[in-house]
Amino acid sequence: MIDMDWIIIDDEFNINNIVSNGNKFMTGNGYMGYRGTMEEYTDKELTACNLAGLYDRQGDGWREPINAPNGLFTTLLVGNKVLGLNNFNPSEHSQVLDIKNGLHLRNTVWETDYGKVKIEAERFVSLADIHLMCLKYTLSVDKECAIKIKTGIDGKVWDINGPHLKNYSVKKENNLIVVSAVTNELKVPVSVKEICERSFEAVENIEKTDVSIFHNICFMAEPKRNYTIYKYVSVWTGNDETENIEEDCSLTASRSFSMGYEKVYLEHINKWKDRWETSDVVIEGCEDDQLALRYSIYQLQIIAPLHSNRLSIPARGLSGQTYKGAIFWDTEMFILPFFLHTAPEVAKNLVNYRIRTLNGARKKAEYYGYKGAFYAWESHENGQDACSDFNVTDVFTGRPVKTYFKDKQVHISAAVAYAVLETYEFTGDISLLLNGGAEVILECARFYYSYTYFKEEKDRYEILDVIGPDEYHERVNNNAYTNKMVYYTVDAALKVMDILEVNFPKEYENLIDKLDFRKDIDYLVKFKEKLYVPKPDKKTLIIEEFDGYSRLENCSLSEVRSRLINPKEYWGGGHGVASTTQIIKQADVVLMLYLFRNEYSSKVKKVNWEFYEPRTEHGSSLSPCIYSLLSCDIGNERWAYPFFVKTANVDLSGDSKQFAGSIYIGGTHPAASGGSWMSAVFGFAGLKVVEGKISVTPNLPNNWNRLNFKIIVRGKKYTIDITHDGSEITKA
Amino acid sequence: MIDMDWIIIDDEFNINNIVSNGNKFMTGNGYMGYRGTMEEYTDKELTACNLAGLYDRQGDGWREPINAPNGLFTTLLVGNKVLGLNNFNPSEHSQVLDIKNGLHLRNTVWETDYGKVKIEAERFVSLADIHLMCLKYTLSVDKECAIKIKTGIDGKVWDINGPHLKNYSVKKENNLIVVSAVTNELKVPVSVKEICERSFEAVENIEKTDVSIFHNICFMAEPKRNYTIYKYVSVWTGNDETENIEEDCSLTASRSFSMGYEKVYLEHINKWKDRWETSDVVIEGCEDDQLALRYSIYQLQIIAPLHSNRLSIPARGLSGQTYKGAIFWDTEMFILPFFLHTAPEVAKNLVNYRIRTLNGARKKAEYYGYKGAFYAWESHENGQDACSDFNVTDVFTGRPVKTYFKDKQVHISAAVAYAVLETYEFTGDISLLLNGGAEVILECARFYYSYTYFKEEKDRYEILDVIGPDEYHERVNNNAYTNKMVYYTVDAALKVMDILEVNFPKEYENLIDKLDFRKDIDYLVKFKEKLYVPKPDKKTLIIEEFDGYSRLENCSLSEVRSRLINPKEYWGGGHGVASTTQIIKQADVVLMLYLFRNEYSSKVKKVNWEFYEPRTEHGSSLSPCIYSLLSCDIGNERWAYPFFVKTANVDLSGDSKQFAGSIYIGGTHPAASGGSWMSAVFGFAGLKVVEGKISVTPNLPNNWNRLNFKIIVRGKKYTIDITHDGSEITKA
Repeated sequence: MIDMDWIIIDDEFNINNIVSNGNKFMTGNGYMGYRGTMEEYTDKELTACNLAGLYDRQGDGWREPINAPNGLFTTLLVGNKVLGLNNFNPSEHSQVLDIKNGLHLRNTVWETDYGKVKIEAERFVSLADIHLMCLKYTLSVDKECAIKIKTGIDGKVWDINGPHLKNYSVKKENNLIVVSAVTNELKVPVSVKEICERSFEAVENIEKTDVSIFHNICFMAEPKRNYTIYKYVSVWTGNDETENIEEDCSLTASRSFSMGYEKVYLEHINKWKDRWETSDVVIEGCEDDQLALRYSIYQLQIIAPLHSNRLSIPARGLSGQTYKGAIFWDTEMFILPFFLHTAPEVAKNLVNYRIRTLNGARKKAEYYGYKGAFYAWESHENGQDACSDFNVTDVFTGRPVKTYFKDKQVHISAAVAYAVLETYEFTGDISLLLNGGAEVILECARFYYSYTYFKEEKDRYEILDVIGPDEYHERVNNNAYTNKMVYYTVDAALKVMDILEVNFPKEYENLIDKLDFRKDIDYLVKFKEKLYVPKPDKKTLIIEEFDGYSRLENCSLSEVRSRLINPKEYWGGGHGVASTTQIIKQADVVLMLYLFRNEYSSKVKKVNWEFYEPRTEHGSSLSPCIYSLLSCDIGNERWAYPFFVKTANVDLSGDSKQFAGSIYIGGTHPAASGGSWMSAVFGFAGLKVVEGKISVTPNLPNNWNRLNFKIIVRGKKYTIDITHDGSEITKA
Repeated sequence: MIDMDWIIIDDEFNINNIVSNGNKFMTGNGYMGYRGTMEEYTDKELTACNLAGLYDRQGDGWREPINAPNGLFTTLLVGNKVLGLNNFNPSEHSQVLDIKNGLHLRNTVWETDYGKVKIEAERFVSLADIHLMCLKYTLSVDKECAIKIKTGIDGKVWDINGPHLKNYSVKKENNLIVVSAVTNELKVPVSVKEICERSFEAVENIEKTDVSIFHNICFMAEPKRNYTIYKYVSVWTGNDETENIEEDCSLTASRSFSMGYEKVYLEHINKWKDRWETSDVVIEGCEDDQLALRYSIYQLQIIAPLHSNRLSIPARGLSGQTYKGAIFWDTEMFILPFFLHTAPEVAKNLVNYRIRTLNGARKKAEYYGYKGAFYAWESHENGQDACSDFNVTDVFTGRPVKTYFKDKQVHISAAVAYAVLETYEFTGDISLLLNGGAEVILECARFYYSYTYFKEEKDRYEILDVIGPDEYHERVNNNAYTNKMVYYTVDAALKVMDILEVNFPKEYENLIDKLDFRKDIDYLVKFKEKLYVPKPDKKTLIIEEFDGYSRLENCSLSEVRSRLINPKEYWGGGHGVASTTQIIKQADVVLMLYLFRNEYSSKVKKVNWEFYEPRTEHGSSLSPCIYSLLSCDIGNERWAYPFFVKTANVDLSGDSKQFAGSIYIGGTHPAASGGSWMSAVFGFAGLKVVEGKISVTPNLPNNWNRLNFKIIVRGKKYTIDITHDGSEITKA
């Protein structure tokens, strides 16, 4: 049944891969993400059922998302020996992710004193019912022996800054076992319920702790027979729009139990079929690229908040609590385009999250003495900023280091405005503007006007004291990317006001009155006219990343790397090895050139790509895809291809930072996943959709024979097929 | 003959005090400073004859002033044993500084295998002839023994970033011995010549190395007899305004030799008598305070560039190469007032140095993209900035740390403008304005206009991204001190233009034309009108040091100190323990309140003193005097007194930082010396001179019975006498 083209596999057990496989073998459905851990793993192996958009604070720790009690927990005892990968090396083992069907599979054989014991497990986080996870767990032996399966809900969860749950209620209700609790800070209830079904006779009893509850299933296993249990696990929280989460939580488990595993399973894989129907990208000619790109799309699908317009996508997806489970600009600039082209309803939800959190952005602006909307650098449920003023720990002293991500990375508001306008322009859905989108754009523009300073001597507005995408250089003036995005935002505000004024005069007047925006219009007109946006140097064509960049030490990446004393050192900030050099963290000018590629000549794009690429550490997973995209834009797919490969494989290879000091910072990289989709579709296919009109300018890599993908434009599905001989756009 | 009230004495030898005594027992005459080391010391004991205003660079090192070959070098051999404090502990020893007469004295007795050997030495750096140093060196023994006196010119000099001299010529010319060389960078010649006279028969020969030349004077010493040599040492450099430095250098030595030691000595001490005649401050009631204050005045006198209007006073005086021998704002804000009131010709020379280096300030402004004059933070001979972009070394990594003293401490230009206008207003000497002073002020104002940004939303100009006097907080916005000083500068420019326009219309027109300043006048009028100067908070009356200061962590000085991991850590900059707290390095708002004390109420001054003092580390020797001055201004001499004592004793106690890592950063603290004079005269006497009119508002400390001092106002001498019963101002 398994389609080997869609399979991620790890067929040997290596204790060092437990954490990275936890990311690599993720399953999820946008409501929750379940890490790719073994059924018998606990908090020590970073097992987590991560809940989207439910945050909590414990003490002085960072706010972070909740991990629910683990309803899939299942372990095995043979004789009195606990059989688990974490304490007994297997003779055979494989872990498999079926990305076509959203299934996690494992096969393990242990050679014990009582003979061979084999486990086959299949599990999924249902795409058909977001509150449901299911596990099919089959045991066989080659000699008769006494077996105990301990399965239930493990309440001892992995937390970075926990514990986040309290007031536990642990109980059995008819055939359900239950762990309910409330969050520490906001007292949001969380309930996990489980029904365990089995196909064989056994003696069963219930074991409880303060936070956990388990079935102990004891029986004499006979050779050549399969012993299977099915688990139906339901998760609900107080964030769900329902009156009685306990009742609903019971219902989810009971209903799926009534349906039976096979039916629930089929509903799930059918939903996956639908997802792939609209989002698959076929690459012929290179199986590795095909799998990596599909895997990227899979990673985006398992975190897509299709079910709610109150959620967005955190920078590490639903792979845990790293990066505080917060929403970054990653979502708007790197993830949104995929959904916009394949699942516009998800894109609208992402945009809606920003509309809904506008007041949080207003509060942040006010705190810093500005007007309008200054969006959170690391956004939590109400738009509050989870970002700390001390986001880095100095490795030499162990002290927190003052960083300026929160207060100086002002380009975040432009990313939000950009997402709103792009989504409106792509979908043509004016309701997005009328229902808050226009307000967001206007408030972002207003923020920038209140942030800017006028330089009389140069007769221009400047954007001072910011951090651009290249975070290694803090508090710079006139960052090209930022200034350009500010210009875009101001222009967007004026454009949106024009649209509303002409087509919806009443709504326009209401909005202007509500925001008391009449004076601001004049300000914005002048601001746009006189805003300084760094231009290519007349001689060199190079656009300086920020004022004074060209005077920084010009030395190679390897030279800067060689200056590291400790490999975990932060490269930026006050003392970082990169901060006084021209070495940058990630695409910055190049990102600007890509986003505004129609406004710059090929020559300028090429010169700047060649200038900045050797100076770029690609220390962020957001970087390679942009270099890939810009090289495609200038018709150089050879430059582009290795960056595509790098981007598409970030979570497969696990080659990214996993720890900062003692703190786990790993996880999945949805922005890179979005970036790999963009590299293929916008880059190699050269897809452009302008006012609903589709065009392609293909630049296929040499080793690809065909690129075939689907998009949805204004409600209509299209298939785009590209070979080296030509291209075809077909309406479904 | 020695007046014990004017004596600094150290009557035991302690090897650990060699370096600090080198500062404490300094002699000098403004042309050169000779460290308080023993005659037999060499570069290892930081012996130095430091030359004012002659700088050199070696390789990539910092530029620093030259130390001349040491013409006073004299050591002793008894039998074959070298007798020197650095290698043989004495049985008796005293080192004495006679600050009344500018004499350095030493008395040392060694108990040797050949009996007691006693040295008495007296030396001075002549105030009557700036190129001359003399030494009288007397030996006696209690048993007959063979003595060798090795004396001459030791060319192996102490350098931090040397060697600075090359192309040595080492020779004997008649009765002169000579070491001549040129500087490394600019090939400036330096010549040292010596004549050694002796009162006894001996066998003498000459010993030479590549860089040194010595007389070896050998004789059998008899008991109960004094063997005295006299050394006449002459120092000239290519910076002296003469055609033939070799000839002049010979002449200085020969002439003084012809005059004989006693006459030369008398000329010297008579000059000191003149100096004290106009500058002494008598304190009755506390001998310690009297001595400390006179010592402060002595320190100022030995570095006063009376002879040249091309020199100023470095921040560590002439005590060595630390702080690069550079001129800081210390001179204008802390040292100038003493000279203005006691030696206006020196004050004018100090101001002239800034006028002469205006082009250096213009170049610096241009480099950073501004107009007008941005004076060097650490000024060398042509106004070039000796300040590095990496002025601190991180103690944990040994790496240079990016600092912003050079490019962001913009208040330096205001200090220069302040000095020019104050000197003009005090002396009434319009030639100062006509001969460059007005041009300096206008160019400083122009610099600030080109530095400022206009905040339309608040309808005001702001001064962004600066460092105020409190260097622990870098890159702040709207530092109260800086903004106020900018306002002062702009106002000064407008004022000076008014003066010239009315009284010297032709010169005014010429200046405006030369500077192409007509448009700038309008700019400055508007700039002054709308420049933001932080005001006392309406509720608390506290003036925020800079935007956002009040949001920094409010914790105690001891708490911040307790966070140090390494005692040599820098407190400021990107990672410093103070930088994220309200702990400041030195008087900042309090300095502003003192300078502009007529514009603020006593209540505001008191509240801010009480708020900022506990938050001040006094990590700079510029800080305590200002706290002393402001407390006197609000009539609280009790608060003031301990800060006076601290200031006046900085160089006597040696309680200041001596090393930063392996680099010696100690030296004398002329700004503190100037500060202690100000504390007594402006503080406790409450002296004010406005348009030539003198007034006092005394606040004598309880333990003082009398304060008596002299000032010169517009060519006339006055004596001011203050007791607890009243005060008297008498014209001489």
